Amino acid sequence: MADRKKVPRIVVERLPLYLRALSTLEEGSLITSQELGEMLGISSAQIRKDLSYFGGFGKQGTGYQVGFLREKLREILRVDREWGMVLVGVGDLGHAIARYGGFKREGFHVVAAFDDDPTKIGKKIGALEIMDVARLPEVVNRMGLRVGIIAVPAGNAQEVATTMVTSGIKAILNYAPVGLTVPEGVQVYQIDPLVGLQSMTHYLEGF
Amino acid sequence: MADRKKVPRIVVERLPLYLRALSTLEEGSLITSQELGEMLGISSAQIRKDLSYFGGFGKQGTGYQVGFLREKLREILRVDREWGMVLVGVGDLGHAIARYGGFKREGFHVVAAFDDDPTKIGKKIGALEIMDVARLPEVVNRMGLRVGIIAVPAGNAQEVATTMVTSGIKAILNYAPVGLTVPEGVQVYQIDPLVGLQSMTHYLEGF
Repeated sequence: MADRKKVPRIVVERLPLYLRALSTLEEGSLITSQELGEMLGISSAQIRKDLSYFGGFGKQGTGYQVGFLREKLREILRVDREWGMVLVGVGDLGHAIARYGGFKREGFHVVAAFDDDPTKIGKKIGALEIMDVARLPEVVNRMGLRVGIIAVPAGNAQEVATTMVTSGIKAILNYAPVGLTVPEGVQVYQIDPLVGLQSMTHYLEGF
Repeated sequence: MADRKKVPRIVVERLPLYLRALSTLEEGSLITSQELGEMLGISSAQIRKDLSYFGGFGKQGTGYQVGFLREKLREILRVDREWGMVLVGVGDLGHAIARYGGFKREGFHVVAAFDDDPTKIGKKIGALEIMDVARLPEVVNRMGLRVGIIAVPAGNAQEVATTMVTSGIKAILNYAPVGLTVPEGVQVYQIDPLVGLQSMTHYLEGF
């Protein structure tokens, strides 16, 4: 397997899309890079190049075995296990995140939820009790968590990120509309709907 | 100004980040591409190249005038006006979207909300009455809306997208975890937190 550090992030971010497409197909079937490409609107050459970083997995002329490729992608992405996640910020968005079935189905579970609002601390969100964010380091450490979700306002996000990182979190899904500064070795994935809206309106002519 | 079609989408998607950084600075001040780059973790060469697509806006050696560059970016992104948006899907996520102040502050307003659940239709979300999704074409047409948000389950998303497009929607913010097929000339921006999580866990060694 290629060195994890050497594979471009843009390549790694396409693997979940391949995995998602494969999961709609029969385990035992075969699929060519052309067919997979058509499902996703990605060129077959791109798919072959992306997978070649990890060894290829296909046979010239016959394509990929769906079940095998899926297993390999799950290993590469390390989603062949369950991940516990810490959530900070339990407003409307935090509620939607904690209750989102799409994460759980793929093995990502919010196992601890925090807020700094005294009126929320002690309340329940599903089966979880909302805890004071001051307890974050202790809980992350005790549960050995590595994945965090930030759903606080922009002004609080960096402080939360810094606390997460010093507590041992290595991957942050950031819903706050602000870029985060984190040390090397910590991953951040920014969810930024406003960037999406503002870049799409650029293309709207004559309105 | 460059032809809207010729500027790579990846460039257009960085402009909102520049705009966001500029909005934290004094209107009348100057900023160099180096300084802006440091705020965003983007190289100064990249920033100069991105802005050169639209004419440059800076003077060699003195940098950019914050207020002027901000105005130009707002024009380019067409966010120097208010945009009405239609929201389809009023579950937990739809609620969070409709109530999200970050959109309103930047001039993006959910002005109509739809669902296909009879127990939700007729209820209120903020000041909006949730309408039957069957009424989408009529309302989009009457209000002249061009921007849509999809917050329905994956299995319903393509159908909603198709209805939106035939009704006149030209830009879709898609929260459903599924790729959408739309005709040329329609923009889609996918919000995909699972892709984020699954690509980040790839980098988590030894856990």
